Amino acid sequence: MQIVRTVAEMKQLRKQLAEPVGLVPTMGALHEGHIELVRRARAECRTTVTSIFVNPTQFLPGEDLKAYPHVPDQDTRMLEAVGNDIVFMPPAKEVYPPGFNTWVEVKGVTDRLEGASRPGHFRGVATVVNKLFNAVQPTKAYFGQKDAQQVIVVKKMVADLNMNLEIVVVPTVREPDGLAMSSRNVYLNPEEHKAATVLYKSLMLAHELFWKDEKDAERIRKAMIALIRKEPLAAIDYVSIADPETVEELDAIRPGALASLAVKIGKTRLIDNLILR
Amino acid sequence: MQIVRTVAEMKQLRKQLAEPVGLVPTMGALHEGHIELVRRARAECRTTVTSIFVNPTQFLPGEDLKAYPHVPDQDTRMLEAVGNDIVFMPPAKEVYPPGFNTWVEVKGVTDRLEGASRPGHFRGVATVVNKLFNAVQPTKAYFGQKDAQQVIVVKKMVADLNMNLEIVVVPTVREPDGLAMSSRNVYLNPEEHKAATVLYKSLMLAHELFWKDEKDAERIRKAMIALIRKEPLAAIDYVSIADPETVEELDAIRPGALASLAVKIGKTRLIDNLILR
Repeated sequence: MQIVRTVAEMKQLRKQLAEPVGLVPTMGALHEGHIELVRRARAECRTTVTSIFVNPTQFLPGEDLKAYPHVPDQDTRMLEAVGNDIVFMPPAKEVYPPGFNTWVEVKGVTDRLEGASRPGHFRGVATVVNKLFNAVQPTKAYFGQKDAQQVIVVKKMVADLNMNLEIVVVPTVREPDGLAMSSRNVYLNPEEHKAATVLYKSLMLAHELFWKDEKDAERIRKAMIALIRKEPLAAIDYVSIADPETVEELDAIRPGALASLAVKIGKTRLIDNLILR
Repeated sequence: MQIVRTVAEMKQLRKQLAEPVGLVPTMGALHEGHIELVRRARAECRTTVTSIFVNPTQFLPGEDLKAYPHVPDQDTRMLEAVGNDIVFMPPAKEVYPPGFNTWVEVKGVTDRLEGASRPGHFRGVATVVNKLFNAVQPTKAYFGQKDAQQVIVVKKMVADLNMNLEIVVVPTVREPDGLAMSSRNVYLNPEEHKAATVLYKSLMLAHELFWKDEKDAERIRKAMIALIRKEPLAAIDYVSIADPETVEELDAIRPGALASLAVKIGKTRLIDNLILR
């Protein structure tokens, strides 16, 4: 497995890679969710590139940039074991050299949910993903459904800017208790981990109501909120039933609606989602 | 010569083109300056693509979008005559379909000169050029020095976003009287055309003072301004002696400094520039 640390080296290497090339963009601290993305890329592509870059521009002031887990040796061992071909792990100054000042902004869909709670977050995401796509020039790039709005933003950027790749979305990988895999789960103590299963439980409740033919999105939101409020360690940021393309809140449920939520468990902010169908 | 009108068709065709591929992005109403870009692309590339697209997002409200000359038959005849291979001329709805909402912004260098006079202009330029680069995937793209700040913005975008092409800058082509070729010159009546030569004359004055070892940028600006003020049809927007990378105004001249100006001649806003060396 080859480790690449500069954009120039990545571009040079790219010319020799067997097609198709799959890219798995990550911030490291890899878990089974990431590994599932790599497996999928391996299955569909002749070359798999995983990038590891904790992107400072998608963290807001006061967020957990400095605390974000950083375990490159463990990450590279996991990637080696799963048969990943190339790890692209540039230092921050390679991605954002002095004087860097070009930004990609996907407007509209970033006004709501995560974009509303974390202003500027998606500008950082779109910009770094755009740079990674240009540096690696993948045939396909793999993203987890866990970050549902990120998937929507990246797909919109690719379509709007005529970018030359396909976005593949891979289902969320969960712990046995339903908690969605996340690099931030390491922040949770055992009690908080248990409390955090309320996110998945509330999504399951939404799913159940949808299947029982509840048509009113607001009733589903209210039921989810009532369930989460029973958990003393949980503090709701948002609970949403939205259009899966525009991320606008729905009045009437329809198949494909995106149920999503952000909840703080202690000091740790977690997100999860489910497509209702 | 092949004419292509959709992004999908352009991308499909791109796979078969002989490398290297040169792109000349234009807004049509072609003149000798554009043709010089095509000649240069022809000399350096095995395939030359010229795009013709009057980009609405780089015009401000109240600017000349609707009046902008539109002569596609004349343009294609000129391109055919110079040996251009492919004309990419998408309709506006192909470039900006309903719901389009992703923008590329180069900050900093766009705060000054044209960016200050035409807020939002360079956001439109960077976005459409980014889209054209992704649709055509050229090896090299050709821009005229006439739009000096545009060149700076496009080069910065390519570097900051790791884009995979080289930007080639071609010297400004001028009328025998020194007036820089521009699609907007058709707006000028004979009297205005004559008055418009004051832009070039003021740049020549700057050049002369630089060669006479004038070190004080402000004295050069003042001399240019005094010369232009003698022309009754001319109204100065800005006169600048700036750093050629940051576009910040200079106190002391140094070789490579960018002398540039924007002047209204009657209702027509014209720009021109010269690198002092």
